[in-house]
Order: sequence, then C-alpha cells, then structure tokens
Amino acid sequence: MSTDAPRPPLSRRRLLGAAGAGGAAGLALGAGGYALVGQRSAPAAAAAPALGAASVPFHGPHQAGIVEPMQSALHATAFDLTPGTGRPGLTALMKRWSAAAAAMAEGRTPPGLSDDQVALDAGPSSLTVTFGFGAPVFAKAGLTAQQPDRLAPLPAFPEDRLDRARSDGDLWVQVCADDPLVAFHAMRTLQRLAAGQAAPRWQMTGFSRAPGATARPMTGRNLMGQIDGTNNPKPSDADFASRVFVPAAPASGQPAWMAGGSYAVFRRIRMLLDTWDLQSREVQERTIGRRKGDGAPLSGGTETTPVDLAKQNPDGSLAVPGDAHVRVAAPASNQGAAMLRRGYSYHDGLRPDGSPDAGLLFVCFQADPLTGFVPVQRKLARGDALSRFVVHESSGLYAVPGGAPAGGYVGQALLESA
Amino acid sequence: MSTDAPRPPLSRRRLLGAAGAGGAAGLALGAGGYALVGQRSAPAAAAAPALGAASVPFHGPHQAGIVEPMQSALHATAFDLTPGTGRPGLTALMKRWSAAAAAMAEGRTPPGLSDDQVALDAGPSSLTVTFGFGAPVFAKAGLTAQQPDRLAPLPAFPEDRLDRARSDGDLWVQVCADDPLVAFHAMRTLQRLAAGQAAPRWQMTGFSRAPGATARPMTGRNLMGQIDGTNNPKPSDADFASRVFVPAAPASGQPAWMAGGSYAVFRRIRMLLDTWDLQSREVQERTIGRRKGDGAPLSGGTETTPVDLAKQNPDGSLAVPGDAHVRVAAPASNQGAAMLRRGYSYHDGLRPDGSPDAGLLFVCFQADPLTGFVPVQRKLARGDALSRFVVHESSGLYAVPGGAPAGGYVGQALLESA
Repeated sequence: MSTDAPRPPLSRRRLLGAAGAGGAAGLALGAGGYALVGQRSAPAAAAAPALGAASVPFHGPHQAGIVEPMQSALHATAFDLTPGTGRPGLTALMKRWSAAAAAMAEGRTPPGLSDDQVALDAGPSSLTVTFGFGAPVFAKAGLTAQQPDRLAPLPAFPEDRLDRARSDGDLWVQVCADDPLVAFHAMRTLQRLAAGQAAPRWQMTGFSRAPGATARPMTGRNLMGQIDGTNNPKPSDADFASRVFVPAAPASGQPAWMAGGSYAVFRRIRMLLDTWDLQSREVQERTIGRRKGDGAPLSGGTETTPVDLAKQNPDGSLAVPGDAHVRVAAPASNQGAAMLRRGYSYHDGLRPDGSPDAGLLFVCFQADPLTGFVPVQRKLARGDALSRFVVHESSGLYAVPGGAPAGGYVGQALLESA
Repeated sequence: MSTDAPRPPLSRRRLLGAAGAGGAAGLALGAGGYALVGQRSAPAAAAAPALGAASVPFHGPHQAGIVEPMQSALHATAFDLTPGTGRPGLTALMKRWSAAAAAMAEGRTPPGLSDDQVALDAGPSSLTVTFGFGAPVFAKAGLTAQQPDRLAPLPAFPEDRLDRARSDGDLWVQVCADDPLVAFHAMRTLQRLAAGQAAPRWQMTGFSRAPGATARPMTGRNLMGQIDGTNNPKPSDADFASRVFVPAAPASGQPAWMAGGSYAVFRRIRMLLDTWDLQSREVQERTIGRRKGDGAPLSGGTETTPVDLAKQNPDGSLAVPGDAHVRVAAPASNQGAAMLRRGYSYHDGLRPDGSPDAGLLFVCFQADPLTGFVPVQRKLARGDALSRFVVHESSGLYAVPGGAPAGGYVGQALLESA
C-alpha cells in the first residue's frame, strides 16, 4: 500500500489510483462485502501524490461517505428547494449532482463546467459526497406517500437549544475529502449546480486529524482533548450492516426505495470549552469515563478494551461513574442501540460573548433513528455528565438513499417510483 | 528524507524528529543561514507518524512561522491586554507564552498544564507560534519610546470595508500546524495562559492544502481556484533576508529591539465567489494574469516563468492586461517592493444574505510595511481588476520581534529595554 498516509484497512472500496502514465491498476483494499470493480483515477489526477490520488468510487450499493474512514475535511450543507421546484426539478438536480459527484470522485471535471481546474494538481483526495432527503422535500416533490415514517421529527430533548435556521432543510449534502480545498471546491460546485432549483439553507465546515499526523486513524480526538469514537460499530462486526443500512422491503417495514440506505442525524454541538478547561483532568476523565491520554476506559485496559460497566473500585464505587458519558451512551445501556458516528470538529472563531464558537459537528448513520440515535440521546439528555459542557445548537434528520449504480443517480428509486 | 509529506527544501530549520526509542538524530534540511543545532522531538511524539513527528524549533534568530513552508492549518488570534496589565504583566505573559510555544513545538506538555494530552498521539506536527505587537500595546505597557514609527496606522485604502472589531489588537498570535487539532489546541493553550492578562479580541481559522495532496507545496490555490503565491520572494534570493527581516540598528533606522524581526500585515479578504464563479475562465485568467490550470503567466511559459509585462499579443494588446492582478502587484510595478505572503483560505459558512463567508486570510511579512505592503496595496486598490471580486473586511499591522534564543522569550529585548 503505497500511500503517504497510514489508513486502516476499513474501507471496502477505497481505491488508490496509480500515479504515472502507465499505471492502470486500481487497488481494492480490505475484505469483500461490496462487489465493486476497481477503477483507476482519471489522468487529471496523475500528478497528485498518493494522498491526493486516492479515490473513493461514487457508485455502489451504498452511498460513499458512510463506512469509509473519515477524511480530514468536511463541508456540510442543507439546501431548500426554491419555490416551484417539484419532482421534475428535483429529479434533474439529483441527476446533475450525482454526475458531478461521480466525476469529482475520480478527479475529473464535472460535466458542463469547463472552467473547473481545482482538482488538476490535487486529484480527488478521497472525496466523497453523500446526499440526504429531509422530511419537507417529500411534500414539495409530491412524494408524501413515499415519506418514511422514520423521518418524523426527532423528539424535543430537554436541553436542546436549537436554532431552526441552522437545522433541518429539504436536502442535506455531506462533502468530505482529505484536502480542504478539494472539499470546498466540491461543495461550491454542487451549490452552483443547484442554482435555480435549490439554495443553501445553512453550511458548516469541520476538520478532523490530518492523515499521517497520528497512528490513531479510527478514533479522533475532539476539541475537549478526549479520544472519541472508540465504541463505533466496526465493519467487521457481524451486525454492522444491519445497524447501519436499511434492508430490502418489505422485511424492513420501510419504503422500498430506502433499501441500502441509511438515516443521518447531523447536530452542531457547541462545547463550553472555557468551562471544560477549568476542570481537573480527573473530573474530565470521570465525565467521559475514559482516560484522556490513551482513551482507555476507567474500568481498565487499553482504548479498545470493552468498557466494564460493572467494575468496582476497591471502595465499592463504580470504576466508570454512573453518569459518565460512555456508560450512558453505551449500547448495553440502550437495548443494544448503536449508530455509526462520523463527527468532525469545528471552530468558527469567537462568539459575541468572547467564548469559542467551537465544538462537534456530530454526524451519525443508522438503519433506524428510532432505535439508534433517539433512545441514546434521550438518555444522554437526562443523565450524561457531559451535558453540562455542551449545547446542542442545531439538528437535522435525513433519509440517505442507497448508492447509485453506474449510470444511475442517487434517489432514482424514489424519484422514479410510481 | 523520510517524511510522509513532500516538502520543498525551503526550511532552514525544519527538523524531523526520529521516531523510536533509539533515534537521536535530527535532520536539518536545506542550506545554511541559521546556525541551529538539531534537536530530536520529545519522546511524547515518538508514536506519531512522520507528519506528526516533524517539528520546527521555537528558538532561533527569527521567530518560526515566517520562512517555513506553510502548514495546512492556521489559527490567528488578536488579544487585548486586560485593564491593569502593564509592562510587568506583559513581560510575564510573553515568558509564559514563549515557554509554552517552545514546549509544544517539541510535542511536550506546556509547563504547568499537566492535564494536557492532545499532542500525545500526534506530535508537534510542525507547529509554529508567531507573536506580534500591535501599536496600542506600547502605550499600555509604558513603552511608547520604543514604538516603531512603522507601526503607524496603515493608510485608508479607498475600497476597504473594515470591521474594526475584527481588526488591530494589542497582541497578535499566529498558530500554524500540519494537524488542525494540534493547531487548535496550541491556540487554546495560549489563550488559557493569557487569562487575567489578555483576552481574545478576534479569532480566525484558515486552511491550506493538505500535505501530500499536491506536488505543488510552495504555491497553493485559493478559493477562486487560482494558483497563488508564485511570485513570493524565495529564501534563495540574494535579497530575501533584507526584504523580510529588520537589520540591526542603527542602520535599520528602527528600534534596536526589532533587529531580526519583521512586520506582519493580516487582512481578512472576503471573496465574492458567487460573482466570480459566473465569469468565464478567460475573464478569470485575464483578471489574475495567469492561467487557472497551471498558474503560468499569460505572457507564456510555466508557473515559474517570470511574468513578461511587456509581452504583446499578435494584435498588439498586452498579453498580461493592464489591470491584471499580477501586473499591478508585481515588484517591477512597485519600485521592487516585495513581501513574503503566507495566506490561508477561510470558510465560515454562509452570510445572512446567503453568500459564502469565505476568502483569504492574507498574511504577509516584510522588513518595512511602508515599502512592502503599503505601496502595493495602494496601487491594487486603484487599478486591480481583482478588486471587483474581493472585499477587505479587517486589517491589522503588527511588529513581530526577532526570535528568542534558548532560555529567552519573544519580546525580551523590548520588554527589558531601559
């Protein structure tokens, strides 16, 4: 594996385009699951070093940007349809967006945008684009019969302080790449292609670790300094697919067009860092339930040791406190509920009161939000020691259709349904 | 050179800490100029891959973060002294800040902050911290006699739309690193250490290309898609040091404490991307004076070919239009004025009118702003075709003292002057 950046063998479809004129071999990494054919990156990316040349195919049974290892840069945008955009307009938009995303994922210029030169020297940089449908889009496109009941509004959590202008939206677009300019450019390109049919409602920028900065690629550190994401479901888990992706109808109890899809919850969670930083390390670790340095649970072991919720200290107290974040959020505390988290940090400078406008752009994917995010968040909102240090500022729930086959587009099964 | 990221042989003092217990050799790159002894990175960084383990020493004749190749992440913060902080308080702060910056540059925990664990798994990631003094700090610290006349307010440029709340400031801190979390954490650490003596006035976050994304490390692309920075002075230029750094007094005509220092101009320049993106590629290229794809001047050649301002098209018109940005900004058009630019892109989401809050965090260093930035910007404000597509939203000018020797602190020569 001749990449500059150490990457875990997680991705089932990450391909490395061979740099250089003669190289034609794409290298499919990891074990099966997807039956995708390797494709080499487009010649335009040939000059890019390995990080830039790495590519993730757009087409496949699931959308890209869900199971792949996190890239280092995120742009998340919600769009609202412009008045008059019905099902035909939405269909045209999803076709255009899909074609552009597929091209950019290969480092090619999107169809019809000949002025586009950004990718020339950086390649696709593992760009992924993930599309989701918010609840309001179904009525606007005359598709209410196809609206999943899982898209019902999330319950109001007692400590939420949601800004509706930065929540929700008809469409949700997650753009991730290992180069921030490639990510920005892809987001702008999609926005330009939406002109006349949809306009941005809100837009947020996030970051993760730089590839090669740390040997810990699976689990990042958040802005509180805590290792975050250890307990994520892993593709090697037997029930991974069933937790993350919607199975085929009718067994799923969901609309047929959602087969292979997922549900995304996106939340802007501001961290009260000025308060957090005043806490001792011991208080911080008891709040989370893990050691700050290496992420090991307070019940012992290393980062990847399962949390032992029953473990007691010599004095009989719980090793992982009763209100520790990892306890309250643990699948064992929530009837096995699990979601695939893929969150990014954000920092947008200072708020008017001088405190940092910084925190977590929380992203999670699950087959069913009613058994994934909702019960966990309900419990967290009640009993999580961490909730004293965070404010949920925005929230969105989106139906993420399955992936598009070559020649198809995302949302096709919905938009071409009877 | 066993780094993950391709880096130009520019830095005279970038060191690669040897990972692993036995490795003790630091590798000093590039040709002389600085007489620095290689130091290996601290053990805490030993687990970090090469990108994370790379370090830039804090101590030296000049501050770090000026001549080094740009890292991928920037946090810029201006601080105002809190009322009552005079010279003793400022001196204590600069000592604390310098000690913390020196430690973090080696991947060590800053003195007195035992709860600090962020660098443990990422190393210093080429962290640099650069401190500057704004004009108001001299009166507040009782040092008006030492205030350089070069710190007089910049002239008002006709098209400036400056927000003073996001301009100026008593102190300016530029934090750069190749890992965004390392950069954020360093910025937060310095902010914590300032508590009681200085409070943030404004804070901005920028990004550049990811190391390894492109083979073009010296010149980035900005959010307009244009290659930017080609004409920067290069350390190999005979007059590089005299353009960037203040010589010793009295020859400099500047206060003695500024020897080895520089002046930084920092401007937030918003790009009118919605308008820019509507222009044809030809218009965009004639606005800049370079080809968008490869950065070659419209007078021909490749990116690094000098711009031929006299070159004519077959029809007798100028190959590089009269109002092209590269012509108006060229040293040849400004009595040889040159500054070392080190700008970052920013994207802070949408503005209230739906347009992107995105552009360039312009940073430039020069020995004398009156012969560097000022005449160039005066000319740009009058005749630059690019000015139709940008808005200067904030501005700051800071005196950047020389570097601190080991055991010293930045600003020592000023703060301990008679």
